[in-house]
Amino acid sequence: MEPVGGPRAKKGILERLDNGEVVVGDGSFLLTLEKRGFVKAGLWTPEAVVEHPSAVRQLHTEFLRAGADVLQTFTFSATEDNMESKWEDVNAAACDLAREVADGGNALVAGGLCQTSLYKYHKDKTRIKALFRRQLEVFARKNVDFLIAEYFEHVEEAVWAVDVLREAGKPVAVTMCIGPEGDMHDVTPGECAVKLAQAGADIIGVNCRFGPQTSLQTMKLMKEGLGDSGLQAHLMVQCLGFHTPDCGKGGFVDLPEYPFGLEPRVATRWDIQKYAREAYNLGVRYIGGCCGFEPYHIRAIAEELAPERGFLPPASDKHGSWGSGLNMHTKPWIRARARREYWENLLPASGRPFCPSLSKPDA
Amino acid sequence: MEPVGGPRAKKGILERLDNGEVVVGDGSFLLTLEKRGFVKAGLWTPEAVVEHPSAVRQLHTEFLRAGADVLQTFTFSATEDNMESKWEDVNAAACDLAREVADGGNALVAGGLCQTSLYKYHKDKTRIKALFRRQLEVFARKNVDFLIAEYFEHVEEAVWAVDVLREAGKPVAVTMCIGPEGDMHDVTPGECAVKLAQAGADIIGVNCRFGPQTSLQTMKLMKEGLGDSGLQAHLMVQCLGFHTPDCGKGGFVDLPEYPFGLEPRVATRWDIQKYAREAYNLGVRYIGGCCGFEPYHIRAIAEELAPERGFLPPASDKHGSWGSGLNMHTKPWIRARARREYWENLLPASGRPFCPSLSKPDA
Amino acid sequence: MEPVGGPRAKKGILERLDNGEVVVGDGSFLLTLEKRGFVKAGLWTPEAVVEHPSAVRQLHTEFLRAGADVLQTFTFSATEDNMESKWEDVNAAACDLAREVADGGNALVAGGLCQTSLYKYHKDKTRIKALFRRQLEVFARKNVDFLIAEYFEHVEEAVWAVDVLREAGKPVAVTMCIGPEGDMHDVTPGECAVKLAQAGADIIGVNCRFGPQTSLQTMKLMKEGLGDSGLQAHLMVQCLGFHTPDCGKGGFVDLPEYPFGLEPRVATRWDIQKYAREAYNLGVRYIGGCCGFEPYHIRAIAEELAPERGFLPPASDKHGSWGSGLNMHTKPWIRARARREYWENLLPASGRPFCPSLSKPDA
Amino acid sequence: MEPVGGPRAKKGILERLDNGEVVVGDGSFLLTLEKRGFVKAGLWTPEAVVEHPSAVRQLHTEFLRAGADVLQTFTFSATEDNMESKWEDVNAAACDLAREVADGGNALVAGGLCQTSLYKYHKDKTRIKALFRRQLEVFARKNVDFLIAEYFEHVEEAVWAVDVLREAGKPVAVTMCIGPEGDMHDVTPGECAVKLAQAGADIIGVNCRFGPQTSLQTMKLMKEGLGDSGLQAHLMVQCLGFHTPDCGKGGFVDLPEYPFGLEPRVATRWDIQKYAREAYNLGVRYIGGCCGFEPYHIRAIAEELAPERGFLPPASDKHGSWGSGLNMHTKPWIRARARREYWENLLPASGRPFCPSLSKPDA
Repeated sequence: MEPVGGPRAKKGILERLDNGEVVVGDGSFLLTLEKRGFVKAGLWTPEAVVEHPSAVRQLHTEFLRAGADVLQTFTFSATEDNMESKWEDVNAAACDLAREVADGGNALVAGGLCQTSLYKYHKDKTRIKALFRRQLEVFARKNVDFLIAEYFEHVEEAVWAVDVLREAGKPVAVTMCIGPEGDMHDVTPGECAVKLAQAGADIIGVNCRFGPQTSLQTMKLMKEGLGDSGLQAHLMVQCLGFHTPDCGKGGFVDLPEYPFGLEPRVATRWDIQKYAREAYNLGVRYIGGCCGFEPYHIRAIAEELAPERGFLPPASDKHGSWGSGLNMHTKPWIRARARREYWENLLPASGRPFCPSLSKPDA
Repeated sequence: MEPVGGPRAKKGILERLDNGEVVVGDGSFLLTLEKRGFVKAGLWTPEAVVEHPSAVRQLHTEFLRAGADVLQTFTFSATEDNMESKWEDVNAAACDLAREVADGGNALVAGGLCQTSLYKYHKDKTRIKALFRRQLEVFARKNVDFLIAEYFEHVEEAVWAVDVLREAGKPVAVTMCIGPEGDMHDVTPGECAVKLAQAGADIIGVNCRFGPQTSLQTMKLMKEGLGDSGLQAHLMVQCLGFHTPDCGKGGFVDLPEYPFGLEPRVATRWDIQKYAREAYNLGVRYIGGCCGFEPYHIRAIAEELAPERGFLPPASDKHGSWGSGLNMHTKPWIRARARREYWENLLPASGRPFCPSLSKPDA
Repeated sequence: MEPVGGPRAKKGILERLDNGEVVVGDGSFLLTLEKRGFVKAGLWTPEAVVEHPSAVRQLHTEFLRAGADVLQTFTFSATEDNMESKWEDVNAAACDLAREVADGGNALVAGGLCQTSLYKYHKDKTRIKALFRRQLEVFARKNVDFLIAEYFEHVEEAVWAVDVLREAGKPVAVTMCIGPEGDMHDVTPGECAVKLAQAGADIIGVNCRFGPQTSLQTMKLMKEGLGDSGLQAHLMVQCLGFHTPDCGKGGFVDLPEYPFGLEPRVATRWDIQKYAREAYNLGVRYIGGCCGFEPYHIRAIAEELAPERGFLPPASDKHGSWGSGLNMHTKPWIRARARREYWENLLPASGRPFCPSLSKPDA
Repeated sequence: MEPVGGPRAKKGILERLDNGEVVVGDGSFLLTLEKRGFVKAGLWTPEAVVEHPSAVRQLHTEFLRAGADVLQTFTFSATEDNMESKWEDVNAAACDLAREVADGGNALVAGGLCQTSLYKYHKDKTRIKALFRRQLEVFARKNVDFLIAEYFEHVEEAVWAVDVLREAGKPVAVTMCIGPEGDMHDVTPGECAVKLAQAGADIIGVNCRFGPQTSLQTMKLMKEGLGDSGLQAHLMVQCLGFHTPDCGKGGFVDLPEYPFGLEPRVATRWDIQKYAREAYNLGVRYIGGCCGFEPYHIRAIAEELAPERGFLPPASDKHGSWGSGLNMHTKPWIRARARREYWENLLPASGRPFCPSLSKPDA
């Protein structure tokens, strides 16, 4: 990878997508930094950007090396309603960290905000929009490259976010955390996509809450909804790094394993290569991950789509394609694993014979 | 945690163990840094210490925050036979990184070396000891606090390592990567322990290759071997962070999932609390992890044994005991997970109904 | 059970259903007699009625004891196209066997026919109806109590069968071997039910091909279809005794385990009690089984619905409700299993840790 | 199969075994007849021989057709302590039923008795031997061909049974219901075998309580025990038709699924062919089954060993070897299952993704 010219010379997100390029997103912050010791489960707020900036910087760096074309500011839930007086410092510091790392490569910085905790209690559009606007002001001041509104359970609130974000004159992406059954008000994925496109979002899709296969089903429905209505938008998917075929409408948070027993569900790199290929085949061009997506999962996207993109990510200097790094192993049966067919066909065991393979959601 | 007085004032490893204290080890470097993009599977060598020192520093920091009392130099396989001319720089840099981070807490630095790649081809004791001695010279120069010889498949070679390491006059720990069936020459765990104690090792145990339950079985046999022979040594266990009840004698490398499909086997934090408790009950006082042990797994050891130790690790500021951080969740069924009984009894599903729960080792 | 008066005095099938009574069907013949050594897998034809009449008589007797209110003639596929010259003897003998056993209780005899092998190759209505008519002539001559047309993949052919069977002036039941996705021509379950009701079938439902849960979903759709169209018919379900959540549209024959590896899927008696209760709650009043339904499964239906029916089946003299027969066991932990909660909550293990829990259908 | 000459001309059990022939045993009575509605779980006594003789006759017939060379009288637990005044009638009737069916083929009749319910409460050798002797008197009067003492948890009591049975001057087989851990007094399988051989048993082995693989392990230990002691005896195995890798010392009765949730554990015919081959290779020549062994399982033994025996059992007229009967199926993917490799390699799914694959024994 040879970034030329620095940030000023980088192509913008829409330039890339309009040009038909694949954009690789980044991965998990909250759950990954929880496991590294910097985020508290339950709160799920990003004060690490001020408390432990080197930990956040390191994770950005890992995603950049893995091939991410976008570094999203670690500002999830960093609104006044969740973080009180800290919120502004966190947003500003998060922008600086993302920019600092992005400058070391060809990645763009996306300012990210998510649904509020207020919407469930009232639907005070004015107050909620005001919260979004305050976050946006920081993103604008820090001059992020584009904006992402993510993790919306209700398309109504997502539309409000798009409305606000468009005020900045930057490209706007928006993702809902819904599955094929639609949003919490029973708006179908197709209808959600239409509403978001009508609101003016440039990039539309889903993030979080559901695993790769389920999220691709939702994307298919969104795409069909847009197609039926004659609307255009770029498609984006950033699913969980967990397998969740047993999810109900509420997604993985309702599974009994959430959030401290999800380990057996973690996707392999090969699962993610399959996901990347299927997303690509479906016409999605912005492909990344959410909770559970470690740097090597992002690398798997970049490697799977390297033929289309024409280059490998930096971290592939530490990864032989399809396990080829094993071909010098002293044990012949391990050398025999250094090939695509082996890993594509592997059905990995859990080592947990007393556990089931599926769970029933709690709700 | 309030470290007082800096490194000079720290108690040594034997002082701690002789005093009956629990020593928490650190966790996984190779597999963890592979997933972060800095180590190549197959080679499994630690050039990251010179190529990406911030990544290594970050991981040391995470283990320190998680409660590790020992930071082991990331020098696994960093001998001339594996790394050629780079070996010396890597060993020196690794010592510096570990020391730098250890100075921020109450942790000791352990210089670590492992079995050679030569032993399988010949058993040239002189040449192998010379390799060990060269690594030891760096450790001595960098003044590590004690030494760990680890990942030995043959007790004969482990004894040679102990012989060499003792020359430095520092405490010596030694761990074999064997299971209950013993070493590759069919020396039982009990006999291995006796030979290592007779060689003068201060701390004896196992690391890597087998999951928590299997490793504790091996430790039980080692303890019995020592007991039967009337020898004394401190016990140490640093098992895999993967469940491997289906391993054969060769351990997890022979499982078909090694190394790129181990995800469904990753232990939860609750599994590790159970492991820590059982290790403690067995009389093991140096308890850490190996491949697959992420920082939150180390924290789980420190939290489980906090009553015995009298303090929580720094990273517990981001972790509610037994999931208590969930007790403010808006969904009542998620709040209901904020208790010990819930997580102790959870049988986590794999989300992989097309996969088996056990595999047959390839050898 | 005290049958009074013999066959002449028995209430007819419609009299029972119109009266709101639960009718318990019988169970598996082909697969059960295959395991007993009298039917050949692949052919699946009922020549056992002439070759080994005592084996067939015995199975009828077992179902009668288990509580079956209907003994269906073992004439599946016993048409000229499948059995050549033997067909007529087989039909006649099958009627005699069922009648002989039914006379020992309060059960009715149902003459059963199924889809032809011809329909797939051509759709010669005249020829297919002629085949049905020849079987019907035997049933009429032997004076069966009512008629069942079953195992139809195409509603068109099922309607033809109903047309023919109505010529005899006896009640007609008809079941399709479809799942929620509908028939092989994509006619939905609701539409199928409507067509069959319009054709004049008295009792409508599904048999075979899908497990309990899936079949109940199909029944729900059939019921809704009838409700939406304002048509009336009694509902009937005779599902597989196998769990098949992983079936595709073609049902269990497409699963890789069919027909010689279905063992791990066999329902327990408790699974069947649950099925019987759910079928009842859905408004189905003719409840039986198909392939895989052993006599004890039929007994489970009769026991679950004993409160509604007011009596237990004869074979309950050998069955304590909810395992109560274990309450005298010498081992206390086995005595502890003599209760409803135990068996309702049991998640039975397969003893097969190297096998998956779901399969992918071959088509 | 062409039996020549009738019962008088049949070769005796020892003549067959001494001659190196394979003797196929019969299968499950208690659990099979429980599912057919004639035996009560918990009591597990054989009053069906007088209450429903046709059901018992039918099952004997099925085993004979399946290839059984021995029909064992259905007299399990039919001693005075368990059945009171009925015991003598049951024993006599059971002998008559077995003989009647055996006369239709080349099978021998074995009089079977099992451990008493008394031994656990006291160890009154005189009283227990008297019970055995009374059963033996019926067997002698009915002139069974040989005797089987089976299902002994304690070798001491088994030796008493052998002592008594030898008084009749007929060949004596004896099987214990133990696993590799030995009897309930911790006598190892090897020691048990030696004691039984010293007592004069002609045929020694195991029955019930453990699945195929575990029982073969036990047989291996018995064989080694005999070999080490220089004693000779024919070997016999009649294992469960259930997979029980998770059993403890007490066998399947301690598994939580016993006795009403064992369905997912039922062996396929292919599992049993494997078992038969492995038993044969181990030197076992009397190979049959116990609880869970249906007629088709016995046929699987006879088919697997048909090359050695030189003939197929009668019921193979209804069974194509390795699924060959499927080769005319209309669906090509089902035709593709008509071959050995398919069934040998199939890993059958349970269709139960919410269930574990192994259980923990209750004791």
